[in-house]
Amino acid sequence: MSLQAARNIMLESIDKLSKRMSRPRVVVGGIPGALESHPGSVKGQIRLIQYNEHSSTDKVVESVAELVDWVSHRKPPESYAGLAPTVPGNGATPAHARRTTWIDIDGVGDVAMLEELGKLFDIHPLAMEDVVNVHQHAKFEYYGDTMFFVARMPIDGGGFNTEQVGIFLIGDVVITIQERPGDCLEPVRHRIANAAGRIRERHSDYLAYSIIDAVIDGYFPLLDRYAEVLDDAAEVLQQGGDRSLPLQLHAIRADLLLIRKVVNQHRSAINVVLRDVGYRMEEDTALYFRDCQDHLQHLIEAADTDRETCAELRELYFAMLSERNNDVMKVLTIIATIFIPMSFVAGIYGMNFDSNVSEWNMPELQWTYGYPFALGLMTLMAGGLLAYLYRKGWLTK
Amino acid sequence: MSLQAARNIMLESIDKLSKRMSRPRVVVGGIPGALESHPGSVKGQIRLIQYNEHSSTDKVVESVAELVDWVSHRKPPESYAGLAPTVPGNGATPAHARRTTWIDIDGVGDVAMLEELGKLFDIHPLAMEDVVNVHQHAKFEYYGDTMFFVARMPIDGGGFNTEQVGIFLIGDVVITIQERPGDCLEPVRHRIANAAGRIRERHSDYLAYSIIDAVIDGYFPLLDRYAEVLDDAAEVLQQGGDRSLPLQLHAIRADLLLIRKVVNQHRSAINVVLRDVGYRMEEDTALYFRDCQDHLQHLIEAADTDRETCAELRELYFAMLSERNNDVMKVLTIIATIFIPMSFVAGIYGMNFDSNVSEWNMPELQWTYGYPFALGLMTLMAGGLLAYLYRKGWLTK
Amino acid sequence: MSLQAARNIMLESIDKLSKRMSRPRVVVGGIPGALESHPGSVKGQIRLIQYNEHSSTDKVVESVAELVDWVSHRKPPESYAGLAPTVPGNGATPAHARRTTWIDIDGVGDVAMLEELGKLFDIHPLAMEDVVNVHQHAKFEYYGDTMFFVARMPIDGGGFNTEQVGIFLIGDVVITIQERPGDCLEPVRHRIANAAGRIRERHSDYLAYSIIDAVIDGYFPLLDRYAEVLDDAAEVLQQGGDRSLPLQLHAIRADLLLIRKVVNQHRSAINVVLRDVGYRMEEDTALYFRDCQDHLQHLIEAADTDRETCAELRELYFAMLSERNNDVMKVLTIIATIFIPMSFVAGIYGMNFDSNVSEWNMPELQWTYGYPFALGLMTLMAGGLLAYLYRKGWLTK
Amino acid sequence: MSLQAARNIMLESIDKLSKRMSRPRVVVGGIPGALESHPGSVKGQIRLIQYNEHSSTDKVVESVAELVDWVSHRKPPESYAGLAPTVPGNGATPAHARRTTWIDIDGVGDVAMLEELGKLFDIHPLAMEDVVNVHQHAKFEYYGDTMFFVARMPIDGGGFNTEQVGIFLIGDVVITIQERPGDCLEPVRHRIANAAGRIRERHSDYLAYSIIDAVIDGYFPLLDRYAEVLDDAAEVLQQGGDRSLPLQLHAIRADLLLIRKVVNQHRSAINVVLRDVGYRMEEDTALYFRDCQDHLQHLIEAADTDRETCAELRELYFAMLSERNNDVMKVLTIIATIFIPMSFVAGIYGMNFDSNVSEWNMPELQWTYGYPFALGLMTLMAGGLLAYLYRKGWLTK
Amino acid sequence: MSLQAARNIMLESIDKLSKRMSRPRVVVGGIPGALESHPGSVKGQIRLIQYNEHSSTDKVVESVAELVDWVSHRKPPESYAGLAPTVPGNGATPAHARRTTWIDIDGVGDVAMLEELGKLFDIHPLAMEDVVNVHQHAKFEYYGDTMFFVARMPIDGGGFNTEQVGIFLIGDVVITIQERPGDCLEPVRHRIANAAGRIRERHSDYLAYSIIDAVIDGYFPLLDRYAEVLDDAAEVLQQGGDRSLPLQLHAIRADLLLIRKVVNQHRSAINVVLRDVGYRMEEDTALYFRDCQDHLQHLIEAADTDRETCAELRELYFAMLSERNNDVMKVLTIIATIFIPMSFVAGIYGMNFDSNVSEWNMPELQWTYGYPFALGLMTLMAGGLLAYLYRKGWLTK
Ligand SMILES: [Mg+2]
Ligand SMILES: [Mg+2]
Ligand SMILES: [Mg+2]
Ligand SMILES: [Mg+2]
Ligand SMILES: [Mg+2]
Ligand SMILES: [Mg+2]
Ligand SMILES: [Mg+2]
Ligand SMILES: [Mg+2]
Ligand SMILES: [Mg+2]
Ligand SMILES: [Mg+2]
Ligand SMILES: [Mg+2]
Ligand SMILES: [Mg+2]
Ligand SMILES: [Mg+2]
Ligand SMILES: [Mg+2]
Ligand SMILES: [Mg+2]
Ligand SMILES: [Mg+2]
Ligand SMILES: [Mg+2]
Ligand SMILES: [Mg+2]
Ligand SMILES: [Mg+2]
Ligand SMILES: [Mg+2]
Ligand SMILES: [Mg+2]
Ligand SMILES: [Mg+2]
Ligand SMILES: [Mg+2]
Ligand SMILES: [Mg+2]
Ligand SMILES: [Mg+2]
Ligand SMILES: [Mg+2]
Ligand SMILES: [Mg+2]
Ligand SMILES: [Mg+2]
Ligand SMILES: [Mg+2]
Ligand SMILES: [Mg+2]
Ligand SMILES: [Mg+2]
Repeated sequence: MSLQAARNIMLESIDKLSKRMSRPRVVVGGIPGALESHPGSVKGQIRLIQYNEHSSTDKVVESVAELVDWVSHRKPPESYAGLAPTVPGNGATPAHARRTTWIDIDGVGDVAMLEELGKLFDIHPLAMEDVVNVHQHAKFEYYGDTMFFVARMPIDGGGFNTEQVGIFLIGDVVITIQERPGDCLEPVRHRIANAAGRIRERHSDYLAYSIIDAVIDGYFPLLDRYAEVLDDAAEVLQQGGDRSLPLQLHAIRADLLLIRKVVNQHRSAINVVLRDVGYRMEEDTALYFRDCQDHLQHLIEAADTDRETCAELRELYFAMLSERNNDVMKVLTIIATIFIPMSFVAGIYGMNFDSNVSEWNMPELQWTYGYPFALGLMTLMAGGLLAYLYRKGWLTK
Repeated sequence: MSLQAARNIMLESIDKLSKRMSRPRVVVGGIPGALESHPGSVKGQIRLIQYNEHSSTDKVVESVAELVDWVSHRKPPESYAGLAPTVPGNGATPAHARRTTWIDIDGVGDVAMLEELGKLFDIHPLAMEDVVNVHQHAKFEYYGDTMFFVARMPIDGGGFNTEQVGIFLIGDVVITIQERPGDCLEPVRHRIANAAGRIRERHSDYLAYSIIDAVIDGYFPLLDRYAEVLDDAAEVLQQGGDRSLPLQLHAIRADLLLIRKVVNQHRSAINVVLRDVGYRMEEDTALYFRDCQDHLQHLIEAADTDRETCAELRELYFAMLSERNNDVMKVLTIIATIFIPMSFVAGIYGMNFDSNVSEWNMPELQWTYGYPFALGLMTLMAGGLLAYLYRKGWLTK
Repeated sequence: MSLQAARNIMLESIDKLSKRMSRPRVVVGGIPGALESHPGSVKGQIRLIQYNEHSSTDKVVESVAELVDWVSHRKPPESYAGLAPTVPGNGATPAHARRTTWIDIDGVGDVAMLEELGKLFDIHPLAMEDVVNVHQHAKFEYYGDTMFFVARMPIDGGGFNTEQVGIFLIGDVVITIQERPGDCLEPVRHRIANAAGRIRERHSDYLAYSIIDAVIDGYFPLLDRYAEVLDDAAEVLQQGGDRSLPLQLHAIRADLLLIRKVVNQHRSAINVVLRDVGYRMEEDTALYFRDCQDHLQHLIEAADTDRETCAELRELYFAMLSERNNDVMKVLTIIATIFIPMSFVAGIYGMNFDSNVSEWNMPELQWTYGYPFALGLMTLMAGGLLAYLYRKGWLTK
Repeated sequence: MSLQAARNIMLESIDKLSKRMSRPRVVVGGIPGALESHPGSVKGQIRLIQYNEHSSTDKVVESVAELVDWVSHRKPPESYAGLAPTVPGNGATPAHARRTTWIDIDGVGDVAMLEELGKLFDIHPLAMEDVVNVHQHAKFEYYGDTMFFVARMPIDGGGFNTEQVGIFLIGDVVITIQERPGDCLEPVRHRIANAAGRIRERHSDYLAYSIIDAVIDGYFPLLDRYAEVLDDAAEVLQQGGDRSLPLQLHAIRADLLLIRKVVNQHRSAINVVLRDVGYRMEEDTALYFRDCQDHLQHLIEAADTDRETCAELRELYFAMLSERNNDVMKVLTIIATIFIPMSFVAGIYGMNFDSNVSEWNMPELQWTYGYPFALGLMTLMAGGLLAYLYRKGWLTK
Repeated sequence: MSLQAARNIMLESIDKLSKRMSRPRVVVGGIPGALESHPGSVKGQIRLIQYNEHSSTDKVVESVAELVDWVSHRKPPESYAGLAPTVPGNGATPAHARRTTWIDIDGVGDVAMLEELGKLFDIHPLAMEDVVNVHQHAKFEYYGDTMFFVARMPIDGGGFNTEQVGIFLIGDVVITIQERPGDCLEPVRHRIANAAGRIRERHSDYLAYSIIDAVIDGYFPLLDRYAEVLDDAAEVLQQGGDRSLPLQLHAIRADLLLIRKVVNQHRSAINVVLRDVGYRMEEDTALYFRDCQDHLQHLIEAADTDRETCAELRELYFAMLSERNNDVMKVLTIIATIFIPMSFVAGIYGMNFDSNVSEWNMPELQWTYGYPFALGLMTLMAGGLLAYLYRKGWLTK
């Protein structure tokens, strides 16, 4: 692989890094809390899932207005026990009919719709601004009784890319607002539809947990992909390595560092959940969030181990390279050390002093065994030097 | 680019660094709290903006004395609710007419005027000293009920430069004292004049927030400029790099480090705001300050990512350089390894032993195929060495 | 040792590292708390030990159902004083007959059995999930009154490998669930059987401590093995070193780093024990846990010292290597510096200018002492250069 | 500059470092609190300054006994309000006449006098021991109501040197005990004598603050001197650098590190003042101490920036050096690469094969254009290699 | 000094490091609190010192049984005021006769005796286990009212070695159990015997402090020895350095690091004393412990400064080395650059083209001034290259 190609790989990696961390386009001095959609944002669809232990509904809703029939707009409760949301077409709502509602919107391009939604659920403008401005860190905040989690969901495809998901927990309602269509939440929807596990028996806080857990689970296959890439790199090294290896390893290491950072943001966010609102969660939901922390800790250690492996491969590559360079140097030195003195002797007897003029002038040239003497002299010098080098251990190691 | 030119770039960068961080000119043992203006400070103009939800005024005021008519001098209140400042020419001030006052001074050269202002608003001499001594860190302090924020506003122009802005929040009055004319607060003034957003409906604490937010917003385009410079550097590298690149990258990295430091000072200061006086803020102003923290966090991460890119470019540059040096070494070794032994053979047959004297003396010279034999010997040696080098992989990699 | 062999060592070490830290196989979006056994898990046997100061029983139990006769299923108590578990076949349980029960299961392959056990003792599904998912960190958690410790027990054999042991403390019952058969707990069983020390006089919390202490003790011989490996490496170095040494040291260092990490997890876990539940422990059990912390501190320092020794050996290896390379360079330079000028002189007098044509053309060739003169010139040059090099100290040091 | 000279600079710097940090001469197992003066300590003079807002006295006192007339020996008060020290020759002391006393001793050689002083003011023996043992860190301690500050005052002269000043605040009395004569407190004495600023209106706590502030102010010109030295170093570099530069920069960096350490000790000490006794200070004295912290923060950042500059200059020096070494290598390689092959050709045609014996033996020697052919061959080789090197970019960069 | 010798020094240093940090010989799964003496432990003698302000006794006691007569076995008191230990042969103990008892045992080989002692004073088995297992960190613990300090006393002799001293403070009794005979506590015994200082007027807590203070004082001469060794190293460097220097410096640095660690353990331990039991100490004993912290801080800084000096000497050594290597390279390059082209010219005119065959064949050989021309050509080349090298500054710097 040529140096130019290696250089290109590196520059691409830098480019990706910048793009991925693309900064929020800030309107300098802009009105705080004003919604302005990024160019390229998609409009998104509203999907409504409502369930209790007895039944579940899953439908696409055309407008926020239509949602009003499904959820009664109310201030969120002080605790997640005993809530009785209005079920459409049913004035009296017996306690056993308490239903959890999940509103999922898969795009932030329709600012008007989001503003309407914000008004319906009394969402703070700053939270809504964060939803639209899709470059947030993973974090957890609460505005009065409204809990607001920003998660970053890994996207399939080359390298490390994430999609922002804003998750609101407002009484019996969970609202997720995704950056774009497509997600890793299908298993959750499946469990709701099929009453798998305990999700249907539990309420909105457990639903919020399940969504966050599913997002976190998405990081495991991502890190597995990186582990495979490192395996490949180890194999390339086994076969002698190629020049772009350190640059590739550098790029992988940068990705892993970034993943660690993002995963750690989730950990900090869940810490806030546990510290500040855990006591308001139903039953043992806090235990489930604590379990999430364990998963996140595993992800962090996996990323760290892979970075360690990067460092080891890099070290091995450079050990091989330096070894090779030392060998180059040594060959040069051995060759030069042996031949330069012998060439000198040859040079001596290539001089043109006139032996006829004086018996002092290179009488060796006239000796019967002059030539063998010269060759012997050279062999002796070479042998001596070889012996010296051998005794120094340069010829064997 | 010559070494001398590279050296100059570096020295300039060092020079800028020292200048930018110019230390306060301390009068050793000077009287604490005594105001002494730095040479070169400009006098500055007093601009008064007063508004409530119904109307707003914006005018230049000639002297501090004139201000007295606009604000009644009083001790700041315990909380920012229910304040009713005196409106000029209006004895009775109904609650709905409560007005917020912004006094903006764009220069610290007129020490007498600042002392008068300090007396009017009962500002502590140490705070006023910090305003005049324009080398403060960004920080937040309070003297009794007077809140005092020191912000550093990035200045347009090459590199990273800031202007100090002291911001006082005293009851319904906000006072900003800038190091010099020109600022990035026009959007705030525009929102006041045009009743854009909610600024006219809210009070002095929200005004203080808005000013700080506008200052922080000024760091986003600054970092964008650095990102562009790094893009350019990547392109230079793509085309082979130039000797000054590591020095340039070093200078950029130093700037980014400094920006990170200053941005972080703002974050610490707002932490103090949230921790110590958040509860005294009106309504949800604390939420807005929390949002500021998010922005500052973004700035820090952007600066960190750019520093990472610097490191990557630098690493790439040195990888290319070291590769080139290794190639140099290798060429030397290959050439020397091949030609030195061949030259030795040529040296042998350049010796002048007299073949006539003895059959032992260089009989090869008399062979019919002596010359081809010598050439063959050389070719053999060169071929053997080439084969050895090839097998070692030195010719291909 | 060849470079290829060294490379293989390194790659194996990387491979081991990845394997050892094998990530949990996460079912993306899987149901939290659902038990799914890893392929390759063994079924495991149930061993029951029950004792008080008067007697002890030790038997293998066929099924969880059989356990019911031995322990009465009850909620764990608030404190570990005054507990009177039901003894089989004995309705009335006098206080002096209070018995401690240890249920030990040495495999996590039988998910159904574990679920049954979980139901019998009211174990939280998340805790049971951690037991089955054998890639947990060492940690301490409590689910209501159930205390749950995850320890990692070092396994005999090459390198560093651990087996997970989940330890539950539920009232008078201690349950240990090991990843696979075989452990380092025999000394504890021996002390119970033979009433050695005070273990029979004390209760379940002391038993839990004793188990954890025995696990921790297992790290001491492990670190002793590493110290011996380092001794061997030092000896190899003494005899000149071999090329794979830095790679071997790197691999050892990585192991030691990992050991330190795992040991430190135990320390953190015991910190939680001391902080959160120490006051509920009987008598001075907390003092014993504090003693564990001392042992763990010792292990950490031993690992750190060994890593330091790795660094020293590595430094010594590279000091020797660099010394050798410098010697190579120096020999080349000395040889070249002495012979190149002499060869030049020989080259001069090897020129074929025709002395007959002009008295200006190499008259030396015709001198009586031309040849000695040339040799003298060369000797002079060589001598001068040798003197120069000697004065520089290059020949002696 | 020769290597020997550079070496000397370095060794001097190391020497200075050791001397400066000279350890306390500890009497092993000595009696704690026993006063033993260091050899070389000066005796010191007692200077008494007493003032209130109306008048001030400044005189040299012969003995501690004489002091008794000026201050009444009493236990320090609980707060610094309402104290009425005895004024000599005046039985009744009206409140408005309350006087602050400053006793300044400029030498610690007279142990007897210090013991007498300690008895008069009830100073703890450990505090007095610290005063005499002049190698203390800057620190703040209190012994009952006696506050004790150890400051380190920078001394004029080459490099960084400090003098210890022990400052006691006992009721209305401030005692300063300096290591040796000469200090930077003249401006404070001047302000007292001339009633400049508010010092005469305030009391002993403000006096203690003023003294500490004056000591801290002394570090600003010190750091300015280092900045100038760095400017000079930059200039030397501009003119090509000299061999001792990295050693000089190393020495400067060590000094700056030490200054940072000492300045930081003052910051820690004032933190203790603010945390522990701030509330007992009169009026807003705590605000003044907070201002000191700002100054100390500035000093720390200035020292850090200068260390950064050291690093930059060092980096520039080594970049230049490495560039130069690379150039050396490259010239050697280019020369060798071009001439070795050409010399080989010349060697070929310098062989003595007898063309007469066989037409195979060097027929070129007999060609009409043999010599031009050989020269052409050489030119071709040189040209080819030059083209190769040029295409590699080695000739231009 | 040869490389082999340097290598030996290094290996010895590693060996010492391992030995010094010799790990506790842990009996895997051993009974906690069981005493087992290390092989090689000495038996030790019991020495009893008892004193009050009026008198003191100092005698060797044969057995623990004999001690019973001297101390009444009782639970330690809640505070160290008003204690009245039984004085042998004296039923009524008036308050003024309150006596402090110091029991000193200088060996841990007699496990039976230690167990008897432990029973007499009700010492917790874990504390006694730590006393026997002489590889503890310096630490402070309390078991009920029994305070337990583990100190490490530096031992005279080459390098850094410590002896463990366990110090118990139980009511009016202080027990010290040393690892082996010999200590640095003579000055304390002397002060007791001679009523020097205040030790006889104070009680057991002050005695415990005095012992700890004496141990800490023992580190000052130790560090002074290292400073002297560094002075010697600087002198060796001054005279040109020797190859083992970096290895020696490395060994010293490792020692200093270890000293710092141990000293810091004492600091942590005394922090616990001040935090947890300071209020139970008599009068101002806490102030004395605070003074110890100052001493320990001094030791830490001295060790840090010496490590800094190590780094400086090392840097200087390598600067000298690298300078020398660069000089080697440069000489090679200059020699080769000048002589290779000249040799080429000589090679040209050493070719054997037959000038007789053609006027194109080396006509220079027949020129009248051919030889001078060739010499001139060489001189020109050499001169040009020398000028080039000179202009590059390679000949002068
Ligand atoms: Mg970037
Ligand atoms: Mg915003
Ligand atoms: Mg936001
Ligand atoms: Mg999506
Ligand atoms: Mg999951
Ligand atoms: Mg990177
Ligand atoms: Mg892993
Ligand atoms: Mg590693
Ligand atoms: Mg500066
Ligand atoms: Mg000031
Ligand atoms: Mg200030
Ligand atoms: Mg401005
Ligand atoms: Mg904004
Ligand atoms: Mg820099
Ligand atoms: Mg789970
Ligand atoms: Mg889990
Ligand atoms: Mg097992
Ligand atoms: Mg144990
Ligand atoms: Mg590793
Ligand atoms: Mg020192
Ligand atoms: Mg002392
Ligand atoms: Mg002291
Ligand atoms: Mg002085
Ligand atoms: Mg000042
Ligand atoms: Mg240094
Ligand atoms: Mg060791
Ligand atoms: Mg133990
Ligand atoms: Mg222990
Ligand atoms: Mg001893
Ligand atoms: Mg002492
Ligand atoms: Mg070391």
